[in-house]
Amino acid sequence: MSAGSLIIAGLGPGNPDMVTPEVQAALDVATDIVGYIPYVERVAARPGLTLHPTDNRVELERAQHAIEMALTGKHVVVVSSGDPGVFAMAAAVFEAVDEGPADWRNLDIRVLPGITAMLAASAAAGAPLGHDFCAINLSDNLKPWDLIERRLRLAAEGDFAMAFYNPRSKSRPEGFEKTVAILQEACGDARPVIFARAVSTSDQTIRVVPLDQVTPDMADMRTMVIVGSSRTRIITRDGDPYIYTPRSVPK
Amino acid sequence: MSAGSLIIAGLGPGNPDMVTPEVQAALDVATDIVGYIPYVERVAARPGLTLHPTDNRVELERAQHAIEMALTGKHVVVVSSGDPGVFAMAAAVFEAVDEGPADWRNLDIRVLPGITAMLAASAAAGAPLGHDFCAINLSDNLKPWDLIERRLRLAAEGDFAMAFYNPRSKSRPEGFEKTVAILQEACGDARPVIFARAVSTSDQTIRVVPLDQVTPDMADMRTMVIVGSSRTRIITRDGDPYIYTPRSVPK
Repeated sequence: MSAGSLIIAGLGPGNPDMVTPEVQAALDVATDIVGYIPYVERVAARPGLTLHPTDNRVELERAQHAIEMALTGKHVVVVSSGDPGVFAMAAAVFEAVDEGPADWRNLDIRVLPGITAMLAASAAAGAPLGHDFCAINLSDNLKPWDLIERRLRLAAEGDFAMAFYNPRSKSRPEGFEKTVAILQEACGDARPVIFARAVSTSDQTIRVVPLDQVTPDMADMRTMVIVGSSRTRIITRDGDPYIYTPRSVPK
Repeated sequence: MSAGSLIIAGLGPGNPDMVTPEVQAALDVATDIVGYIPYVERVAARPGLTLHPTDNRVELERAQHAIEMALTGKHVVVVSSGDPGVFAMAAAVFEAVDEGPADWRNLDIRVLPGITAMLAASAAAGAPLGHDFCAINLSDNLKPWDLIERRLRLAAEGDFAMAFYNPRSKSRPEGFEKTVAILQEACGDARPVIFARAVSTSDQTIRVVPLDQVTPDMADMRTMVIVGSSRTRIITRDGDPYIYTPRSVPK
């Protein structure tokens, strides 16, 4: 039996023109595509390609399935939105390998990076992540809320800009409310907050709101939230403003 | 005079197959390319295209030059390695606009994201940035060293994984030495540190070293350094190990 392969590829935030040629080439020679339904839908069907869309919250089973297929000789691509290494499928696949049978370790696994949502959102708004920043997943599905809260306070104390993935879902609306309260206490009223929804798609909206005017309903699961540092500036103009964080901090 | 345009585009970490089609299309219709010499060298010469390579450490002058050319009707692309919004030219261009004449604000400026070095490095090693993380520029050319040190300590206290840009240069070898000492004090001996050099190029090397065996000479300006969180794991195997940070923290 010929050796199979397993690739974990990032499709970028939505715009097909942000899919790298490296990722496109992997999709073009795959026999099987595995991933969450809306991401698998972004891969064009063709003869010889089997699509395996699965529901959310089954990342580990999905990863195991992909590994098993690769071990039978298939050329499997696991797709993630954005970058597969940022709150996405790459860690899930390595978790499955780590917990699986010893021979799974011999599988050659490659991760192909993609444009992650926070950097597409940052680009659409200007350059708010132009200085030191943190990326934090606000979902407490897989970690204690206390840890999120501690990280938020330390990031604010360090005056990092912050990018929030999965800020708010219908099943856990209270987390983002608490996040906003913590930041309002730690960062002052004027701190710019960017709500970048459906970034790089035709539905894209970018909204910039001072922290004291933020309300929790401004975010949903399609929204990236970026909070500036104390140095972040807004350039007002006739069109949409440019938001950026300068490269320097006075010595 | 026809309206010019200004685009700030990310060329990714080096592999031409990581340049997005969106960025390639912008390069294909540009009249002028502006950037640091080694990045401009990555753009193919063609009739009708003027290349403007400039030395390092002249970001603001380079940004002003790009803006002035765009205002005279040119189609200017400012190129950065990686992503232009991460310790690169996008912030420099907006700084120039912010400090420049009022009519500069009317210029339509677009930022096109690219694959940033830390995510290419993470992909090459596995998924060490699969959970919450910080991106920190270790150069103190544009900020006080005390701020870097404070951020390192807070990031360690928050148990973030960390990605370091510009870890070490010949002109400031002592910063990375101090960084290693701070982390050895704060993070314990076994913490995995990844030295990813010349990522995505034919010179790529990936080296994984426990924190107590790190020596400052392991990094140079072509190296991305990634430090795991306390949860980061190493999967040993016959080939290069896989390093990943699990998606979950036990509640």
